[in-house]
This record gives sequence, structure tokens and C-alpha cells, in this order.
Amino acid sequence: MIVTPWKVSGDVDYNRLIERFGTRPLIRGLLDRLGRHAGHLHLQLRRGIFFSHRDLDWWLDMYEAGQPVGLYTGRGPSGPVHLGHLLPWFFTKYLQDAFGAELYFQMTDDEKFLIHPDLSLDDTVGYTYENALDLIACGLDPEKTHIISDVNNIGHLYKLALRVAKRVTYSTIKAVFGLTDSDNIGIIWFPAIQAVPCFIQSAREGRNVAVLIPAAIDQDPYWRMTRDIAEKLGYYKPAQMHAKFLPGLGRGGKMSASMPETAIFTIDPPEAAAKKVMSAFTGGRPTVREQQELGGDPSICTIYAYYYYLFEEDDAKLAKLERDCRSGAIICGECKARLAEIIKRFLADFQRKREKARDLLDQFLLK
Amino acid sequence: MIVTPWKVSGDVDYNRLIERFGTRPLIRGLLDRLGRHAGHLHLQLRRGIFFSHRDLDWWLDMYEAGQPVGLYTGRGPSGPVHLGHLLPWFFTKYLQDAFGAELYFQMTDDEKFLIHPDLSLDDTVGYTYENALDLIACGLDPEKTHIISDVNNIGHLYKLALRVAKRVTYSTIKAVFGLTDSDNIGIIWFPAIQAVPCFIQSAREGRNVAVLIPAAIDQDPYWRMTRDIAEKLGYYKPAQMHAKFLPGLGRGGKMSASMPETAIFTIDPPEAAAKKVMSAFTGGRPTVREQQELGGDPSICTIYAYYYYLFEEDDAKLAKLERDCRSGAIICGECKARLAEIIKRFLADFQRKREKARDLLDQFLLK
Repeated sequence: MIVTPWKVSGDVDYNRLIERFGTRPLIRGLLDRLGRHAGHLHLQLRRGIFFSHRDLDWWLDMYEAGQPVGLYTGRGPSGPVHLGHLLPWFFTKYLQDAFGAELYFQMTDDEKFLIHPDLSLDDTVGYTYENALDLIACGLDPEKTHIISDVNNIGHLYKLALRVAKRVTYSTIKAVFGLTDSDNIGIIWFPAIQAVPCFIQSAREGRNVAVLIPAAIDQDPYWRMTRDIAEKLGYYKPAQMHAKFLPGLGRGGKMSASMPETAIFTIDPPEAAAKKVMSAFTGGRPTVREQQELGGDPSICTIYAYYYYLFEEDDAKLAKLERDCRSGAIICGECKARLAEIIKRFLADFQRKREKARDLLDQFLLK
Repeated sequence: MIVTPWKVSGDVDYNRLIERFGTRPLIRGLLDRLGRHAGHLHLQLRRGIFFSHRDLDWWLDMYEAGQPVGLYTGRGPSGPVHLGHLLPWFFTKYLQDAFGAELYFQMTDDEKFLIHPDLSLDDTVGYTYENALDLIACGLDPEKTHIISDVNNIGHLYKLALRVAKRVTYSTIKAVFGLTDSDNIGIIWFPAIQAVPCFIQSAREGRNVAVLIPAAIDQDPYWRMTRDIAEKLGYYKPAQMHAKFLPGLGRGGKMSASMPETAIFTIDPPEAAAKKVMSAFTGGRPTVREQQELGGDPSICTIYAYYYYLFEEDDAKLAKLERDCRSGAIICGECKARLAEIIKRFLADFQRKREKARDLLDQFLLK
């Protein structure tokens, strides 16, 4: 398996990632503390979608001691948003509501320009503002959310980025990110920019804020580097929570914009998304008869994964779905059709919110 | 000899630099063309202080064809300005007057922060505005001069810098600047920032401007790199004129802020500067008697160098000074005392202009 900020492939073994990256599993005691503050335990916590962390216990200690806490996550705006991107954003909203925390949300339109040969700055900056609509549609608080365009808000970032960059050698970047001498000097510099939102709230408020980063596990190298230099700059190390990847609709692999036929984009016409669902890879048997006799396998089924990750909030109903699948009581066509309906309704609703977000956009942009 | 943007040492052989850097000597025909447009030939041209160039002929062709031309030079603000810094600025004013050109002047307060372990951003940005007073005191045109603080004006620079950075690999930077893996990622990125003023006027005016960079020869690696990518970005390659270094007051070596006893700073009290002159290394003999008999050697004399580079405008008088020195007709004490007086008057006058510049500063800053 390969899991880096720029490439995820192979079967991802999340337990091995915890070992390889040196993070810690999200244990029951931490979940209970999160649930207590939030009033309920988020689906993504109950089901282990957020599965690993660094220093979450410390971050909760800080919160419980009345110290200022903040949130940071982001997006590389290289195209339209799909459901896999929304997953941690929904969770971030849950955290923002639970802890009343400021959220700095970084759109890395500089990075995406630097790594994609075919994208112009107009392209990536354009996606920043289009993708921001998706973020806003997730229901974040305009009073407490600050969307950063690296390109357009560089004036807010450059000083902190220079302070980070002065502490990080190319050797470190090579070791942490696997960059090579034939990479461009922009992408070598960029990790300094991605570190900035770990410290920006502290810098703006003139006091040390404990920052938690909820994000997919592939971003971990950035925070390893950032944690190494945070205290030298006089700031706290950022804490992290790591999410699994939402599977795509094909056989294996995460949802990826580079395989649009297996990804559901928030701007897909609902009917088109429903069609993708109806063509998805499932854990079904070759024939209906076999399936009724032998049952299906939800553990490899993308349809089941969508209920699990996003669309079946009720744990008891989810458990029943799994049982019915394994027993052959439900067959794939039926199960797909039901999900297709749910996703159609979800998209219609989300797209309404997303359009409304155009009027709210300015309130969310970093000032 | 070592001549890089960060280190100059040893006896600098300027003819060898022309070969090593692949530049071209400033020949008579080019001087004549410059002089024709300016109305007179600047001391620094008559005396070969600007001695080398790239594409100056093309730049003059463009000007003569009525095409837009611009100027770019800069300063690394890591301390107070000395006479060695003023040398190309005086010449830049001459060019600005002659060609009516816009000048973009870059203060690399990011670079100086990144390479000096002991300098903070407050230090280098502070020097930006202090050093700007010196630049303004040189008499540049506020309508046509734009002083850039990399740190404070990054919003004007970042997009162009990203476009440059995307085209430049770490391998190139390593080869051109001799950076190593243990250098920080900021200084590896920085050449992209230093390239920006080559293109900023074109970007702001929406038309291609032919840019000439008058600067000391040690900056040449930046322009080699920039010239390689300019046309890929749709801009002209910048032309350059290369200056020699003003010697310090000690034995050999250029004037350097790191040896303050052999450098004359613009903020030195005139009496203190006069004392430095009186202690300078000369081409004199051990005794007055020997000198009167054998004569002095102006070719190694720092005092003579100051007349030559800056303070004896009249070529005939300079030639007489040289003859009188070689013949023993003038001895060092006398020659030093006269220069000390000239420098005292120069500094008193310059310091008045420099103080007046505080009120003009805002007009000169990039908007």
C-alpha cells in the first residue's frame, strides 16, 4: 500500500498505518470524552471511521481546563468535491458545534497548481471558491470559520511560513515526503505553507491555542514535520485525528476524482449519481439464486460501505442490513435502489444548500 | 576566488568572471549608445565599474524601437547601507533619468531572515524601510520607483513566484546556487521570489516590458535561472549589466558590512567615517622619504579606489592624482585627508537627504 499526501493506492491497512506513522488508536475512553462534550457520539466515531490520533487526550485536557482550542483542516482544490471529501468536513462541523471552536480551513490552491502540470492558478483558485460552497453547505458556523485561499491570502500566511521554513531542511522534506531533486522548488517550499494554519489562530489572537486537525490519514506527514518545529516557534504541537478513506464505487480503492465514474460529486445531477450507484461494485453473488442461498458479503461491498460511512445513521438498522445481506434476505438490486434514492435526496438537498452558500461565501473568507 | 550571492572572497578577477558566467564585456559601442541617450557617459561606465552585460544591446534596441523598458535592482536588507551598496544605485538613477524607466526595487527581507540565524523578521523588515531611505536619498523618481518588501508585499509577488517555482527543480537550484540538502526549504524557494520583479511590470501593465537589471556581478546566478524560464512564462528574458565591487578600506576584498571598520556606512557620523579613511590601507611606502623617491602604487590603494569609483568625477584630475601618486609628488596623509573631507561633506549632505526621505517614503512603496 502507498499512503502519501499525493498518492493513495493498494489495500489500505489502517492498523499498519498506526504502527508505521507512530500514531495512537482512538480508544473508548477518548470517544467517551468526545461524546460527553458533544452530547452524542458521531457515527464516524462509533464506527471507527476516525480511528487514530495524536495528542487528542492533551487537546481535550486543554479544553476541559478552559484553555483556548481551535480546529484546522483543509482541501486541495483541484476539481469538484466528492462524498469522500465531505466525510471529514461533516465530522469537523460536529467538532465545531461540540467545542465552539474557531476553524481555519486551508484551500491549498498553490500546492495544487504546483503539482498538476495541467492546472493554472486561475483553475485552482477558481476551485477554491467553488469548493468553499461545499464546505459551507456542511453547515459550519460563519462566525467561527475562516476559509484560507493560500494564493489570495498569502499576506496572512507568509511570515509564519518563513518562520517554519527557516527550521526545515530539504533533507527533512525528502525523508518525510519522499520528494526528489527533480521536484520543483515550489512543492519543496509548500509544507511550510501547510503548517501555517496550525499556528495562525495563536498568532492572530496573541495567545497559544491548542489546535486539533481532523483529516484523512494521508496528510499525516505534514503534521509530523510541523510537530517537530512547533515548540521551537513558541507554539503548541497540533493534535490530530485521522480518518479512513471513503471507498469508491469500484472494486477496491478510495473514492477518487481521477476515476469520476466511481465517485459521487456534490455537483453530479442526482439522476446521474443514482446511475453510478446502480453500477457500483457490490458483495453480491453472480446470480440472484446463489445470493438467496449463500448470502452476500458486505465487507467488500461499496453499497454497504456508503450506508456504513454516511447514509445509515441508525446502528441497529445498519446491523440488520448486514445480517440480511449475509443471510441472502436482501439482494443487491434492491439494496442499490434504496441507496440510489437516498443519495438522490441527499444531493438535491445538498445542492440547494450549496447554492445558498454563494450568498454566504464572503462571511466565511479569511479577513 | 568565490563569487556567489551569499559570499564573495579572494581576489576577484572580473575577466575570468565574464568567462565563467558566460556574460559579455561592455564594449565601446554599447557605452556610446548609453551615453547618447543619457546625454553623458556615467563615471561608472567611463571607468569600467559596470564591466559586463547580457543582452544590453537587445534592451537598447527595444528602447530605440519605442518598446516599453523597465529597470529592476534590489537589496538584501540585513543591516545599514554602506557606500558599496550605493554604487549601483547611483548608476540606476542615471539609467532611470536617461530612459524614463519604471524601477522595481526589491528588498529581500524574506531571504535575509532565512539565511541569517540571528535576524528576526522584525529585524529584516525594519532594515527594508531604513535602507529604503538610502535608496530614496540617491534621487530616484517617486513617480517611477516601486520599492518592494518581499514580506509585506508578498500579495503582489506570490502568483508570479509560484509560476516561476513550478518551472524550477531543486536540481537546478543546487547546480546554480550550490545549495545543499541541509539548507532550509525557504532559501531553496527564494530564487522564485527574486525572479518576480523581472516580470512584475509586464504583469501589472498587461504588456511585455524589456527589463534591465543593473547589479553587482554576484547576483548573476539568479538571472541565469530566470532567463532559462522567462520565455516559458511568456515574458522576455531580463537583460543585465554587471558591476564590480567597491573595495573596502582594508587590504583587499570588497566593502562588507561584516567588517564595519573598513566600511563607510551612510549613517556613520561624518567624523567617524573620516577616521576610518585616515586608517585605510593605501598604496604608500613605509616612509615618506621612500614614497617621495619611489612613488606610491594607486593600483592597490583603497583611497585611490574611492576617488576612482565615487569621488573624483573629473577624469583629468583623477589621471593627475594617479600620476602624482606614482611620482611621489603627493603622499598618503595628504591624499587621505582630502578624501576624508570629501566623504565628510558627502555624508553630511546624504544624511540630510536621507532624513528628508522619511516624508517621501510612502510615495516610493509598491502599491
